[in-house]
Amino acid sequence: MFTKITSKDNQYIKNYIRYSEDKKKRNADQVFTMEGLKLIREAFDEKINLLTLFLTPSFIQKHLKSSAFLQDNNLPHYEISEELARKLSNTQNPQGIFAIAKRIDKPLLLDTIYSGGKYIALYNLNDPGNMGTIIRTADVLGIDGLILSSGCCDIYSPKVIRATMGSLFRMPLLYLEEFLPFVKKCSENHVCTLASSVDKTASSAAEYRFSDRTVLFIGNEANGLPEAIQNNCEDKITIPMSPHTESLNAAMAAGILMWEMLKPTSRYE
Amino acid sequence: MFTKITSKDNQYIKNYIRYSEDKKKRNADQVFTMEGLKLIREAFDEKINLLTLFLTPSFIQKHLKSSAFLQDNNLPHYEISEELARKLSNTQNPQGIFAIAKRIDKPLLLDTIYSGGKYIALYNLNDPGNMGTIIRTADVLGIDGLILSSGCCDIYSPKVIRATMGSLFRMPLLYLEEFLPFVKKCSENHVCTLASSVDKTASSAAEYRFSDRTVLFIGNEANGLPEAIQNNCEDKITIPMSPHTESLNAAMAAGILMWEMLKPTSRYE
Repeated sequence: MFTKITSKDNQYIKNYIRYSEDKKKRNADQVFTMEGLKLIREAFDEKINLLTLFLTPSFIQKHLKSSAFLQDNNLPHYEISEELARKLSNTQNPQGIFAIAKRIDKPLLLDTIYSGGKYIALYNLNDPGNMGTIIRTADVLGIDGLILSSGCCDIYSPKVIRATMGSLFRMPLLYLEEFLPFVKKCSENHVCTLASSVDKTASSAAEYRFSDRTVLFIGNEANGLPEAIQNNCEDKITIPMSPHTESLNAAMAAGILMWEMLKPTSRYE
Repeated sequence: MFTKITSKDNQYIKNYIRYSEDKKKRNADQVFTMEGLKLIREAFDEKINLLTLFLTPSFIQKHLKSSAFLQDNNLPHYEISEELARKLSNTQNPQGIFAIAKRIDKPLLLDTIYSGGKYIALYNLNDPGNMGTIIRTADVLGIDGLILSSGCCDIYSPKVIRATMGSLFRMPLLYLEEFLPFVKKCSENHVCTLASSVDKTASSAAEYRFSDRTVLFIGNEANGLPEAIQNNCEDKITIPMSPHTESLNAAMAAGILMWEMLKPTSRYE
C-alpha cells in the first residue's frame, strides 16, 4: 500500500537521522523531526506541513483506520521495518510513526508585547528537557508568548519537541540577540520587567502582585540571569526555600513563577 | 595513595554496576549508588554510611584537598581510571567520584501524620525523573514527609537519586501497600485528604484554602488516581488549564500544588 523503505542507507532515512542529530542542518533547511501519533496529529491539526511520514507495519495495522488525518493522499508516506523504526527513535519502545516537518514559528511581535499581556523570556536556558517542560507548562497555564535569547538550546531538537507535547506549535515566539535593550524598551513602554532570582532580598512570589503587562525573565540553569539584566528589571522575584536546601530545578521554578503570574487573581480583590 | 583498581572485573566495580542496574539486588542488600561531589558530600553530611568510594586521579588532584570529608580514614577509597569512571557513570562527563552507600530511610510515622503537618502521597508514580523532581521540590518548599505506594518506581535508582540532589536524605518517608485504608484513617483523624484531579468540577488550586493538616494525593502519570481514592478524599483539587491543552507534566503539577499548599498563607488573613 505504501512505498517500502528497507535500507538504512535510503536518503529519506538518512535525512531523518541527520535532521534529528544536526542542529545546523535542521536550521539550514528549516525542518524538524518528531515521533509518536499524538504529537504528529497535533502538528497536523495546527497546520504544520508534514513533509515525510514513516510508518511501521504494526502501526499501520493498529492506527491507520482510526487516524483520519493519515488518509490524506498528499502526505508522502513510507513503510519502514520495526528495525529501522528503532534506528529513528529516541525512545525505548517506538510507537512506529515518525515525521519530517517544515518548521513554522508562530511569530510574536515586540509591538504585541508592548501593548500588554504576560510573557516569559528565557536567557540562555540550556537543557532541552527543561526547555520542553517550560514551553508545555507555559501553554497549559496560558502565557501570551515566549522570548528566547540566542544562547538558548535549539527548541526544534527532538528532546524539546517531545517534552513540549505539541505546545510548541501553539506558542508565539520571539528570538532576541540582546536582552538588555529589550528590558529597557519594556520599561519605556510601561511593561513590568521581573527578574527571577535566588536573592534573599527579592520579593516572594507568594505575595507579589503581578501587573497585566509583564515580562518574566528566567536565567540559565547554572548561572541565573546576568547582573545587568537583573539590575535593569523593575523587580526581582523569588521562591522562598527551606533552610539547608539550595535550589529548585529550573523548569520547576519557572513553572511555579508562571503559575503565580497567570492564575486567576480574583482572590486579590 | 589509595588502592588502585584497574580491572572492570574487580568485585567492587561489579557491585557498583549491579547495584546501579538491579533494583532487587539493591533492595536485598539495602544499599544504593551515587556519583558527583555535591551529592556525596550531602550524603556524608546527612550521616549516610558511605561503604565504598571510587575516585579518578584527576578528581583526586582537583578536589581531594578542598573536600575535608574525603580525608576521613575510615572511608574505604579506591582509585579508578577515567575509563572505569565512564563505565560507572550515568552522565556524559563524569566528575570522577562514585559511592556505594548504605540505605537509611528517614522514617515517617502514621501518628506523626495524624498529629498535623502537610504531606504528599504518591500513588504508583512511575517515572524516575518525575519522582526525583518531586522529592527535590517537596524538600525545597518544606513538606513534612512523603508517602509512597508500593507501585511507585524505586526511589533509590540512580536516576531518582541524581534528580533529588540530596533531598532524599532529608525526606521523612512512609511506604504503604494500600492507600484506601489510609485515606479513611486520615479522615477519622481529622486530616484533610486532597485528591489531585483533572476533573473540571474539582476546586481550583488558585482559590483553595489548605488546612494545616493535609495529605495531598498525586496519581500515576498515565492513569491519575484510582476513582476509589478520589471519591474517598475530602476534596478534589485541580490546576485550571487553557483550552486545547491537555495536561501538565506530573512533576510540574505536583510542584505547583505543593507550592499552593505550602507557601506562606498570610495573604489569606
